[in-house]
Amino acid sequence: MTIQLGLIGAGRMGKVYAETLAFGVPEVSLAAVAEPNSAALEEVAARYHIPHTFNDYQALLDSKEIDAVIIATPTGTHARVVMDAAAAGKHIFCEKPLSQNLQECDLAIRRVKESGVKLQMGFMRRFDPAYRAAYLKIQAGAIGTPVMFKATSRDPKRTSLEFARRENSGGMIVDMGVHDFDLARWLMGAEVELVHSLGACLAFPELKDVGDIDNAVVNLCFANGAVGNIDISRNAVYGYDIRTEVLGTEGSLQIGYLQQTAVLTLNRQGVTHDTVPYFMERFGTAYAEEVRVFVKHILDNTQPDVTGEDARAATAIGIAATRSLDENRPVKLSEIN
Amino acid sequence: MTIQLGLIGAGRMGKVYAETLAFGVPEVSLAAVAEPNSAALEEVAARYHIPHTFNDYQALLDSKEIDAVIIATPTGTHARVVMDAAAAGKHIFCEKPLSQNLQECDLAIRRVKESGVKLQMGFMRRFDPAYRAAYLKIQAGAIGTPVMFKATSRDPKRTSLEFARRENSGGMIVDMGVHDFDLARWLMGAEVELVHSLGACLAFPELKDVGDIDNAVVNLCFANGAVGNIDISRNAVYGYDIRTEVLGTEGSLQIGYLQQTAVLTLNRQGVTHDTVPYFMERFGTAYAEEVRVFVKHILDNTQPDVTGEDARAATAIGIAATRSLDENRPVKLSEIN
Amino acid sequence: MTIQLGLIGAGRMGKVYAETLAFGVPEVSLAAVAEPNSAALEEVAARYHIPHTFNDYQALLDSKEIDAVIIATPTGTHARVVMDAAAAGKHIFCEKPLSQNLQECDLAIRRVKESGVKLQMGFMRRFDPAYRAAYLKIQAGAIGTPVMFKATSRDPKRTSLEFARRENSGGMIVDMGVHDFDLARWLMGAEVELVHSLGACLAFPELKDVGDIDNAVVNLCFANGAVGNIDISRNAVYGYDIRTEVLGTEGSLQIGYLQQTAVLTLNRQGVTHDTVPYFMERFGTAYAEEVRVFVKHILDNTQPDVTGEDARAATAIGIAATRSLDENRPVKLSEIN
Amino acid sequence: MTIQLGLIGAGRMGKVYAETLAFGVPEVSLAAVAEPNSAALEEVAARYHIPHTFNDYQALLDSKEIDAVIIATPTGTHARVVMDAAAAGKHIFCEKPLSQNLQECDLAIRRVKESGVKLQMGFMRRFDPAYRAAYLKIQAGAIGTPVMFKATSRDPKRTSLEFARRENSGGMIVDMGVHDFDLARWLMGAEVELVHSLGACLAFPELKDVGDIDNAVVNLCFANGAVGNIDISRNAVYGYDIRTEVLGTEGSLQIGYLQQTAVLTLNRQGVTHDTVPYFMERFGTAYAEEVRVFVKHILDNTQPDVTGEDARAATAIGIAATRSLDENRPVKLSEIN
Repeated sequence: MTIQLGLIGAGRMGKVYAETLAFGVPEVSLAAVAEPNSAALEEVAARYHIPHTFNDYQALLDSKEIDAVIIATPTGTHARVVMDAAAAGKHIFCEKPLSQNLQECDLAIRRVKESGVKLQMGFMRRFDPAYRAAYLKIQAGAIGTPVMFKATSRDPKRTSLEFARRENSGGMIVDMGVHDFDLARWLMGAEVELVHSLGACLAFPELKDVGDIDNAVVNLCFANGAVGNIDISRNAVYGYDIRTEVLGTEGSLQIGYLQQTAVLTLNRQGVTHDTVPYFMERFGTAYAEEVRVFVKHILDNTQPDVTGEDARAATAIGIAATRSLDENRPVKLSEIN
Repeated sequence: MTIQLGLIGAGRMGKVYAETLAFGVPEVSLAAVAEPNSAALEEVAARYHIPHTFNDYQALLDSKEIDAVIIATPTGTHARVVMDAAAAGKHIFCEKPLSQNLQECDLAIRRVKESGVKLQMGFMRRFDPAYRAAYLKIQAGAIGTPVMFKATSRDPKRTSLEFARRENSGGMIVDMGVHDFDLARWLMGAEVELVHSLGACLAFPELKDVGDIDNAVVNLCFANGAVGNIDISRNAVYGYDIRTEVLGTEGSLQIGYLQQTAVLTLNRQGVTHDTVPYFMERFGTAYAEEVRVFVKHILDNTQPDVTGEDARAATAIGIAATRSLDENRPVKLSEIN
Repeated sequence: MTIQLGLIGAGRMGKVYAETLAFGVPEVSLAAVAEPNSAALEEVAARYHIPHTFNDYQALLDSKEIDAVIIATPTGTHARVVMDAAAAGKHIFCEKPLSQNLQECDLAIRRVKESGVKLQMGFMRRFDPAYRAAYLKIQAGAIGTPVMFKATSRDPKRTSLEFARRENSGGMIVDMGVHDFDLARWLMGAEVELVHSLGACLAFPELKDVGDIDNAVVNLCFANGAVGNIDISRNAVYGYDIRTEVLGTEGSLQIGYLQQTAVLTLNRQGVTHDTVPYFMERFGTAYAEEVRVFVKHILDNTQPDVTGEDARAATAIGIAATRSLDENRPVKLSEIN
Repeated sequence: MTIQLGLIGAGRMGKVYAETLAFGVPEVSLAAVAEPNSAALEEVAARYHIPHTFNDYQALLDSKEIDAVIIATPTGTHARVVMDAAAAGKHIFCEKPLSQNLQECDLAIRRVKESGVKLQMGFMRRFDPAYRAAYLKIQAGAIGTPVMFKATSRDPKRTSLEFARRENSGGMIVDMGVHDFDLARWLMGAEVELVHSLGACLAFPELKDVGDIDNAVVNLCFANGAVGNIDISRNAVYGYDIRTEVLGTEGSLQIGYLQQTAVLTLNRQGVTHDTVPYFMERFGTAYAEEVRVFVKHILDNTQPDVTGEDARAATAIGIAATRSLDENRPVKLSEIN
């Protein structure tokens, strides 16, 4: 049996999923795509041989032959499209976040539950081989009890000023940190209870005009007493730098890498290698794997592990960390929830 | 336009190509497969949704709709199938080697030329991102004039005793070294003129009974005076270990890596990472890329860079190196050609 | 001319300096040692061929032939010994900290100034080749403007419970973090203005009984707006783990290493190397170098770069970070000073 | 008890030993130095506070208070000085080689034996922590039975043309390879039986005029059937590159490193680190350690592990490998001995 998939959204992330589905996930057929921008719609449909196209995603949801949808619409619309898809009885894979509004998260989660469809959220890092291996090692006791979480999340370039506005991206900490907040909960096996952020606009002064920052550090306190820290930057001009450490009572794990191509150049300047350019080079296989796993959950009728509640929890940490930045004080998650 | 491809051979390498074509190469349709073993034929056809199946590859070659074939039959049959495919007017991608008999190589090359079809040989390492980057760096002068070539080729486990027989594999130096001999010519930009080998059966005594060895070192002298050395082993129990160095007058390049998953485990035993298990983990993307390039040559009507002559030259070095082992003396390529 | 040095204190750090002076610093003669514990005094004097011994350091200070002293007494006595040495007209190399009481720091700094002797504080990391190289690269603009400081300081084992008491060590953040606070100011070229700490006793419950913790994270805000974070742990059972990063607008520097011995073991368990056992293996050459530089300042009559003010500033950050931990709020340095 | 040492030879290697003895080996006193060049003699004596100086080494040997000597004279004189020192009853540490003439080696070894003095040869790599650790791992069975030896020995710059003459250096293979030949025997636990070399003058044409080469590869066959290869180059412009591998039936060891300073620079050009400049940076501690061990053998009255026979064996391999280069054929050690 082949799952008939509909793609909702043909922007940057929509193209990522179209590419992934076209070549990397054998068990599905990408049968339809919906996108209000006709040029983008036609381009994606033509490039990936998608037979059915819609400007209005509701029309896609009305298609009887569609089993499941991938939602890659603008961030602010995720929750509404999720609820519409649930109402239409389609299984849902939704790019993160579910919503940057926690009440909306709660509503969407309830609607999905009531409808009985499956919902998997797009925290692709959990499907990266290295993060997956680390998770399994921790579960197997390889480092004893985790006591400290560390993460570095650095982009090689500034986001667009338009997206940087807090009403669009949620601000840098929410936008970039959400993956780290999800990893923190998942790898540490504990909820975050309190956060403290410091941040500033140091590399790209133009971000200040739209209310955003470009560098931040976020301290975390977990419910079990463990501590953590995440650093986030938009000015890692050397490449896409995603690293995570979990220190335990019996050892530590370091996840991540900086070298893209396995060539060292040795000359009078020293020894040099290249870096990972951006997120698709780093997590391309994880995007494919998470969709494969989603499809398998449909085929096997099992529940996805990466839930709406996970998305809500990661967003809540981001909101708390942003409030900490704004108010220059530690913020408890209980204030947010 | 989509190229209609026929796969000839559904054994180990045939499955590699079927997998690659099914999911990794969008511009082709895998339309037919030929394999005398009916069980293997059915398995591959079913798994990869290949519509047409044949026990006799000649019947596949007779299909009008097939544009090109991938030959992954047993080594000893490559040249014959190549010639038959050329006679049928099909473009040819042929797994290495063309033949372990140089006269047969010459004949196959001539028949291909006469037929006007394209022939690309399966030296996939040339399409690995790291080897490709190294080649381009050398061309760009990054290390000055190359003066020394070094290669390590180690398998994590013994081959089957049946395959190890020289009449099947050509012996370890030919079987494993052929990729290194090809890299040597390609990266150094020079022909090999003389070789000297030492080897022995040191880890798997049972290989001696079938006339093979498990460890060897091969010195190389190039036409421009440069020197080289390749080490080959079947007992790298730690993993698949493929590394290459090119030393030049202005620097050096080191190609290859040992770590599969980007996780370091730090505990009382030290710092540990895993290794590359085997060739598909290391060169999976290269297999896809070489077929993509082959398809592009057909679509663009350009000539493949990896030719029958390249296959012949690499095999000739392997034959010379094996004769050196047998006769314990340096052997000139001019003795072989 | 050879500088006649007196060593005050023959405990753990005193022995480090005796070893360093005996074999690593040619321009000095270790002429005297003072230590109240007679057994320790005799042991060090015998082992390093130190001609003059004193139970009372004041007697050593009274020796006319002594040009300079190295102070390696218990932490709580540093300031007093510094002031006595200044009164005796001896140049002073003092192990960190100057004092954990800022008023005492100020007093000692004033006395040193009035006496005209030189004072160099023992922040040996500044003399480590890697940290030194990083500092020079930053000065040369290699990473543009520094915007983020990151440090990891992890010990492989718990300190003694006695030393862990806050009245002795100052608490883990002061004790272990002081080197990182010094590096932060030095490498970032800016003062720390505000800190926020989280910490807990997670690996060694017995530390709780003496009022200490074993894991902490400390957020930093610098006067120029840059941000930073330091993580500190006593349970890095895998080894002594000291790493520092400085991210700038044009690149980043990573300082530190984990591998002690240049051997990789490759076997069925993967690829393994050892780790750095403890601080002397990591900073042994830096201890020698800082004393060499101190001696050179005496010989050349130049002023040391690592001053009493530096020690005071690093301690102030540690006090602020500890108060932040105690009061669970960000603490401004202006509250402390 | 302190051993009174005399240093014979104050050239490049003599200075290395003077530096080492002055600061790195506590149990000895460097009491005398002999050197025909008066300027060099005075310089070394002054710099390292050596009380007694001689132009004629025989006068040094006549000194009653000297217990042992370090011989760092020109290569061609080693054997003669060794025999004279033995006749004078002095224990001997001799820089490699003992002699490039095997008969002379034999004679010197016999004289040393007859005199009863101790002789330790200067193969310092055996005292490097990494090589020492590798040796112990092999002895402990960590890699099963060693089956392949690999070594890379590359200098960052050309030697002087005068020294390059075969009558002075023995030619590049003897000069640079001798350390690798010694490691090969020591780590593999087997004698070399046959060698085959290829080499050429590729980077420095001026070396051809004095009869030397700048790049070579040397195949080795050991008495137990194991195989090996060494590559040697004078044009590693990127740094001093010494790496060794021992592959066994149960794993492999890689010894060596390329990075001198523990700083990574990450910028738009990628990730860069420096390299090891030259032999003192790489083996400085090994020079000190080998002398410490020599002194300990004297104090404990035990026999050194690195013997005249070891020096003779390494030189014999070098002679065989050079003959192989000259005659373009494999050469058996039995032809040389």
